[in-house]
Amino acid sequence: MEPKAKRMRKEWHVPASEMARNTFNPIRSIVDGMKLTPNPEKQMIALSIGDPTVFHNLPIPEDLEDVVIQKIKSRKFNGYNPSIGYEESRQAVAEYTSTETIKYTAKDVILTSGCSMALDLCISVLANRGQNILVPRPGFSIYKTLAESQGIHVKYYDLMPERSWQVDIESLESAIDSNTAAVIINNPSNPCGSVFSRDHLLDILDTASRHKLPIISDEIYEHFVFSGNKYYSLGSLTTDVPILSCSGLTKRFLVPGWRMGWIVITDKNDVMTEVRKGLVSLTQRLLGPTSLVQASLPEILAETPQSFFTDTLGYVEDNANLFYKLISAIPGLRPVKPQGAMYMMIGIDIEKFPGIKDDVDFTEKLVKEQSVFCLPAKCFQYPNYFRIVLTIPKDKVVVACDRMRDFCNDHYMTMVNGHT
Amino acid sequence: MEPKAKRMRKEWHVPASEMARNTFNPIRSIVDGMKLTPNPEKQMIALSIGDPTVFHNLPIPEDLEDVVIQKIKSRKFNGYNPSIGYEESRQAVAEYTSTETIKYTAKDVILTSGCSMALDLCISVLANRGQNILVPRPGFSIYKTLAESQGIHVKYYDLMPERSWQVDIESLESAIDSNTAAVIINNPSNPCGSVFSRDHLLDILDTASRHKLPIISDEIYEHFVFSGNKYYSLGSLTTDVPILSCSGLTKRFLVPGWRMGWIVITDKNDVMTEVRKGLVSLTQRLLGPTSLVQASLPEILAETPQSFFTDTLGYVEDNANLFYKLISAIPGLRPVKPQGAMYMMIGIDIEKFPGIKDDVDFTEKLVKEQSVFCLPAKCFQYPNYFRIVLTIPKDKVVVACDRMRDFCNDHYMTMVNGHT
Repeated sequence: MEPKAKRMRKEWHVPASEMARNTFNPIRSIVDGMKLTPNPEKQMIALSIGDPTVFHNLPIPEDLEDVVIQKIKSRKFNGYNPSIGYEESRQAVAEYTSTETIKYTAKDVILTSGCSMALDLCISVLANRGQNILVPRPGFSIYKTLAESQGIHVKYYDLMPERSWQVDIESLESAIDSNTAAVIINNPSNPCGSVFSRDHLLDILDTASRHKLPIISDEIYEHFVFSGNKYYSLGSLTTDVPILSCSGLTKRFLVPGWRMGWIVITDKNDVMTEVRKGLVSLTQRLLGPTSLVQASLPEILAETPQSFFTDTLGYVEDNANLFYKLISAIPGLRPVKPQGAMYMMIGIDIEKFPGIKDDVDFTEKLVKEQSVFCLPAKCFQYPNYFRIVLTIPKDKVVVACDRMRDFCNDHYMTMVNGHT
Repeated sequence: MEPKAKRMRKEWHVPASEMARNTFNPIRSIVDGMKLTPNPEKQMIALSIGDPTVFHNLPIPEDLEDVVIQKIKSRKFNGYNPSIGYEESRQAVAEYTSTETIKYTAKDVILTSGCSMALDLCISVLANRGQNILVPRPGFSIYKTLAESQGIHVKYYDLMPERSWQVDIESLESAIDSNTAAVIINNPSNPCGSVFSRDHLLDILDTASRHKLPIISDEIYEHFVFSGNKYYSLGSLTTDVPILSCSGLTKRFLVPGWRMGWIVITDKNDVMTEVRKGLVSLTQRLLGPTSLVQASLPEILAETPQSFFTDTLGYVEDNANLFYKLISAIPGLRPVKPQGAMYMMIGIDIEKFPGIKDDVDFTEKLVKEQSVFCLPAKCFQYPNYFRIVLTIPKDKVVVACDRMRDFCNDHYMTMVNGHT
């Protein structure tokens, strides 16, 4: 049999696809490019990882574990589940997310393998290649990674550090163009730790409404707000803007590895019928989260004691206050007080550190000299800031701040004899 | 503030993306379009669902459950895991997949959320929009769903029922063109239940080698072969063809809902360096399977007793033999004896059933009259066959076959007075 000579390759060459080459994690590529050799005389303190489990200081409630164990033992949840998730589990998320102003049912919920899959489905269902989505700056890098790998462009709107990272509505408005498919709002925010007020959320909704722009609302830090702040979901405030909200067990329940996320659809005027169908189609590509955790959702969401949330939040808020107080006193650093989530952004008066080029250089040298690792905010498209995580053990907070102070004292410009 | 009039929408209209509209599950759309009203006098027997857990007749070993429970109790696996999976778990898959002729290590393995995610990553990393991949006909529909949703075309090569569903090499060869990015081989096969011989696999490899065509090998039914057959992975036989193999716990360990899959990379001559990197990038989009099951892999793969596999296979093979014997005796049906996996394909001599149009009509009427539901092979791009699953309880096998016989007797053309 003579093969048809339609394929002319004589040598093996297997290129990676465009999608693979366009899939780009800024955090990975910036961090992998950094020289991170700690000072051998000081134990490393990592303030860089947004994983609340790494220090084992924030335990999950035993009930959570017992529920999953019961599901395993029941042997009822080893089979395939519906691609959008078990109905009972979706109903549980619907009830968990409902407020006085909006009631959801199972049909408004899609279960996903972590919040990143929720975001991916939302971006995929709303935007075509060549279109753009609007994302916050500073903002979490996954939006960019997910969109650009699919040939969807990203445009930025600015957050304002001097106003607790509120959205610069003018900047948002000027970013909207005829190719804009959706805007991503992240509240409470990673990396900012900001919590938007009701009025500010109404302003955002008003802007989306005037431009007929659907919102993808990343609410993975929902309810994770410090005292004096109140959390509102965007879905609970809208009268007309269609919203796909993304959340999950990851942060609030401290189990990121379990990969349990979801999408909640708010569509008061039924303008997203096609999008609903599209989401269902997209779930048939990969199916969702593991059946064992899915099946546990109703009990986890309904029965986790309030004290668990209060304790976790109290711990993180105490750390936030301590960090803020100690860092405020360090020359050349400008912490922005967080209102929730697990992070704080800290501005660097970079012109006051003559030997230091930028945030990447600053954080690299901080590792080398003081063995403290913070994420340069270049990872979040926001140079000359850095992000710290607030979930670390208390004793490390003080040590980390002492070292930052020493570092800044060593490098801060000193006015000696009129020289710097 | 006057908004810039760059976006002119006056009314809400939120369309679903092209990707969502192009994501199409043939099984869903064919089955959803069928009239499936069973005969109220007969209890429904579903021979349609490729989920070995639905009848609770094939239990998983207790050890499997205990391992996962221990991991939960240890509280060590609640955090984020590396996007490609824990190293120990990848090493366990490497050892599980290694043979006398090829040794894998952790760096050759990527863990995925089920085998469908493994297939999706493999297709995504090898093929660009506008290119094509080759898939078997009959073949499992997920290949088409995954590819077409990304704008990757699908071309078919034929399997030959008269040769136990071996690949028609000539058909494969003629399908290859300058836009072909990869070929998918599925062995053992869904829906065919075929198991390819060593010689046949070498023929396939030879074809791929001459055309310098990488292979995506769907081996989710690996080792699931009946007596007299031997399973060879493609990776264990190749000398030059680069191969991405996909498998997981799903079928062999009877836990599809757990969503534990993996990719194993075979690349003896290092022609897929870029593809390896691309796969790692792609895993950073969604992360992988739940940490709890990932962490359990080393013990599950090393310690599941051989008796479990022998028992399961024996059960399914007994069913296969019984089904084959009984259906062979039914007029108008041509079962193709399976050699492994969990399925059998049955040809319909459609011209012998004057009142029946095709396989969809046949299976629809079989539900209506006899309450037996088989999947029409139109779902696998192969009309006038249907597929049955072999994992059902034994007593149902006989009842199902009795009913199929009655159905065929009722509809088979009868030569009375020279009329049909």
